[in-house]
Amino acid sequence: MIDLLKTEKQFISTHIKEGGTVVDFTMGNGHDTLWLSRAVGKDGKVYAFDIQQDALDSTARLLESEGADKNYTLILDSHHNVKNYVKEPICAGLFNLGYLPGGDKTITTLHETSLLALSAGIELLAPDGAILCAVYPGHAEGTLEGELIEEMLSGLDRRKICATKFKIVNSPTSPFFFLIEKK
Amino acid sequence: MIDLLKTEKQFISTHIKEGGTVVDFTMGNGHDTLWLSRAVGKDGKVYAFDIQQDALDSTARLLESEGADKNYTLILDSHHNVKNYVKEPICAGLFNLGYLPGGDKTITTLHETSLLALSAGIELLAPDGAILCAVYPGHAEGTLEGELIEEMLSGLDRRKICATKFKIVNSPTSPFFFLIEKK
Repeated sequence: MIDLLKTEKQFISTHIKEGGTVVDFTMGNGHDTLWLSRAVGKDGKVYAFDIQQDALDSTARLLESEGADKNYTLILDSHHNVKNYVKEPICAGLFNLGYLPGGDKTITTLHETSLLALSAGIELLAPDGAILCAVYPGHAEGTLEGELIEEMLSGLDRRKICATKFKIVNSPTSPFFFLIEKK
Repeated sequence: MIDLLKTEKQFISTHIKEGGTVVDFTMGNGHDTLWLSRAVGKDGKVYAFDIQQDALDSTARLLESEGADKNYTLILDSHHNVKNYVKEPICAGLFNLGYLPGGDKTITTLHETSLLALSAGIELLAPDGAILCAVYPGHAEGTLEGELIEEMLSGLDRRKICATKFKIVNSPTSPFFFLIEKK
């Protein structure tokens, strides 16, 4: 059976360059931050965003305990302010929309800021860079986020961007993915 | 940049077993028939369908000239009659909907028979078998075919089948794919 999450990681990993700059737009518990830190290596840079101090704390602990290179910056701010912190082109970005696993489920990403963050991320992409965006339609805000993101992506210039959607059609509440590749 | 066609071939190839039975539901010029013939090997079986004698002729020539094993049966009939010919479970099936490349563009697959053929193919799937279905929405019948197929797949029991859609959202006329996996 296809494992969409694993498949998506494979797709994005082909875009990540050692020594490159990458962004974890939804830090959460830091598992993707750690994965990105290892992928870009000691000469790379990882910027990771979350609006909850708990997320920064558990991510810092995880990176420490795993002996990650000090190539990361953990930022307590909304991801839609990414351009205040990241000034260079990025080769990859990750979005895992929804709520912090194990945290307060009433605090979720919101479509207004998610859309702004995703647009900013796309603007920051270097040539051959890519963003992977996971949407969780199991809650109402997630469903709306997915629809608005698809609408926004549908309007992007095909000569500059290729936006592919991966979705299990007979499981409406399963997460689905967008892979957004810059030419 | 992601190459959906290549990606899809990789997905389906993990389901094809040497010595297994597979079906090319849309033979066309036989490139997929050849690929399937090689994938199942001399002890496997390939059934390939087309309603045009031209397709059978060019496929037969291709298989001969490439020295393919004689593990194939080329059938001049509509793919929705598959069960009249294939009596054993299949590990893989391929659909490339639309018209014969280089042939008469007024002769296309039709949603009525495509849906019947796809349903029959799903019923024939062995455990861990899969069908890959490419839809070409560049013409009106292709767009309708895609919508009806998605509707049909959406109703399949998630405990038995996983149906995943892959689509470039900012290129509405590009082909898109369904991977239908049996558990």
